[in-house]
Amino acid sequence: MPILEREDDGAIARLTLNAPEKLNALSDAMLAALQAEFDALREDKGIRAVILKGAGKAFCAGHDLKEMTAGRQAEDGGAAYFSDLFTRCARVMTSLRTLPQPVIAAPHGIATAAGCQLVASCDLAVAAEGTRFGVNGVNIGLFCSTPMVALSRNIPRKQAFEMLTTGEFIETGRARELGLINRAVPHEDLDAAATELASTIADKLGSAVKIGKQAFYSQLEMGLNDAYDYTRDVMVENMLNRDTEEGIQAFIEKRPPEWKQ
Amino acid sequence: MPILEREDDGAIARLTLNAPEKLNALSDAMLAALQAEFDALREDKGIRAVILKGAGKAFCAGHDLKEMTAGRQAEDGGAAYFSDLFTRCARVMTSLRTLPQPVIAAPHGIATAAGCQLVASCDLAVAAEGTRFGVNGVNIGLFCSTPMVALSRNIPRKQAFEMLTTGEFIETGRARELGLINRAVPHEDLDAAATELASTIADKLGSAVKIGKQAFYSQLEMGLNDAYDYTRDVMVENMLNRDTEEGIQAFIEKRPPEWKQ
Amino acid sequence: MPILEREDDGAIARLTLNAPEKLNALSDAMLAALQAEFDALREDKGIRAVILKGAGKAFCAGHDLKEMTAGRQAEDGGAAYFSDLFTRCARVMTSLRTLPQPVIAAPHGIATAAGCQLVASCDLAVAAEGTRFGVNGVNIGLFCSTPMVALSRNIPRKQAFEMLTTGEFIETGRARELGLINRAVPHEDLDAAATELASTIADKLGSAVKIGKQAFYSQLEMGLNDAYDYTRDVMVENMLNRDTEEGIQAFIEKRPPEWKQ
Repeated sequence: MPILEREDDGAIARLTLNAPEKLNALSDAMLAALQAEFDALREDKGIRAVILKGAGKAFCAGHDLKEMTAGRQAEDGGAAYFSDLFTRCARVMTSLRTLPQPVIAAPHGIATAAGCQLVASCDLAVAAEGTRFGVNGVNIGLFCSTPMVALSRNIPRKQAFEMLTTGEFIETGRARELGLINRAVPHEDLDAAATELASTIADKLGSAVKIGKQAFYSQLEMGLNDAYDYTRDVMVENMLNRDTEEGIQAFIEKRPPEWKQ
Repeated sequence: MPILEREDDGAIARLTLNAPEKLNALSDAMLAALQAEFDALREDKGIRAVILKGAGKAFCAGHDLKEMTAGRQAEDGGAAYFSDLFTRCARVMTSLRTLPQPVIAAPHGIATAAGCQLVASCDLAVAAEGTRFGVNGVNIGLFCSTPMVALSRNIPRKQAFEMLTTGEFIETGRARELGLINRAVPHEDLDAAATELASTIADKLGSAVKIGKQAFYSQLEMGLNDAYDYTRDVMVENMLNRDTEEGIQAFIEKRPPEWKQ
Repeated sequence: MPILEREDDGAIARLTLNAPEKLNALSDAMLAALQAEFDALREDKGIRAVILKGAGKAFCAGHDLKEMTAGRQAEDGGAAYFSDLFTRCARVMTSLRTLPQPVIAAPHGIATAAGCQLVASCDLAVAAEGTRFGVNGVNIGLFCSTPMVALSRNIPRKQAFEMLTTGEFIETGRARELGLINRAVPHEDLDAAATELASTIADKLGSAVKIGKQAFYSQLEMGLNDAYDYTRDVMVENMLNRDTEEGIQAFIEKRPPEWKQ
């Protein structure tokens, strides 16, 4: 069985982290598999939404600590390996943002450390009720400094700081209140709920969603005036798209659009 | 009847979008009327709070799609017109921020696309219970890229992304939880609630509110140290205001202030 | 009795604002005492968490208005004094961020104006149920422009704007919903709850918490890519710490770590 399974279902790609004996840890192999799949999806015009889930009893428990410890054997005590590891991991996380398709995390069980970062880095998240989220590296002396980049862009800062310094978990109810997930459903409904959300998005005009997703994250890092200058041009480009012209015309004529997408 | 009505009530100006047959769409005429009124209010020393509401069954349903479609007849397919349109619309939205007076949105019915942007761009919002908010342009192939600039500065990002890519609406309970509105009241109490909030603000020292509103948005775009350097100077200017001196003196003497404002 | 009491309890320092007759106002003397204590704590390797509370019936009611008014007697009407005062106050607030140890505010009664800023500037806050928070300077003509720097980095903007322009208070339930505090407990349990949270943090590896706290606020002001470049280096440094190596090894061997900290 591959460490990362991909199953396509029409315009939806379903990725399953598949190293359940390691709680789907982000090992070197898992990071490489994720990166390769994201690079392939980026060019895949037929896919308009992606679901990311985990096999076994947990979504993802973060980095592979045994592998990291083995890295200490190098002459530099692991410095070069760790730097490369966190660079590769950050590339996986930022690839979620730069992928043209929206990505929906569908966590269950636990999502900790870099596993919580993975949820925070996805565009959307539907969780199984009772999923526990934590950035608990501090418990073993390794502050979750890279996971906090994603977490602190999802939830308010005092609540992020508490999770990071106490190592305590939050469950789905609190995660939804804080903004880390969009909703929680009973575990047996998780696949259906994630698929329904993915289908809703996949039914939209893909080129509009693509241009919108990119603009979403870009404008968030700008001041207000720059954000408007930038999105004005995005709107003009979107308006000039033939499928968008048809979408608006169909709306005016009260009929379904006929998109070429 | 004018497309935008203005009614002054002491220090409060009440603006009513008045094209109910078009669900108060932000047509070229409506944008021009809003800009003209905001430009007039900017110089109006007698007004200390503004309420923005809509006539008919909805607050505002966004851009005027028929007018936009007509714009496609130009030789460039509408590119120049669309660019100008979104520039004018963004100017209306940013004028809400730069107006010296706080502006309270009082939506009812629906507030969609640029209509939702209008609510998000106001300083405060009191909504009629049951008002539905959406950035649903994605449903017709036009991602709400300019509305998201305002929306994503009001609510957490996963929740904003969900609204933008699914086109689904949220009601007032969820809008309050997320931060898009300050509160919701029964429809029959909407005018009274908006007026009460406007009156509370209009009773404050206008020069202090003006200096504070400007500083609020400016400091939000700064790093912490720059924000403190900037607001220190704002506080000094505020302290040296004669009315502020009287306000503090009155507080110490436990009597109401006598302001010249 | 000193204006600021410090009591050490193992690795926890408890600071108590002690000018109850002035509702613990941030007078020149109080600001100087806070700055001196923060400067001492910065060098104190034995302290790994700090609690900040107030003596008497309130946590802190903000600046000392009588002292500020006395400052107007100078030839420049107080301009130089006010500028210096707000500079010193901002230095106290930003020192909370740059202190290596997490600081937990433990407010009760009221926390208003610069007192609310103090809560917002701490890393964490546990409040007595019923504590009232406000940035009510606007009521006397002095907009809380410096407190808003901290407040608007804790809670959503429309809710911050409402507090700033209406001067109205929020209680602990709403403060927790908005993100201003982490939790509220009955007043009689406040010391125990703050101490428990401080103990949880003090039991972690101090060097990891220190490196993490600094990185937390630094990366918040960066774009996503810069934040990952920066925190990658923080993670590498953290990994190369001997105590962290022991923490990870102990976790793999399922035993408690033996830290030298």
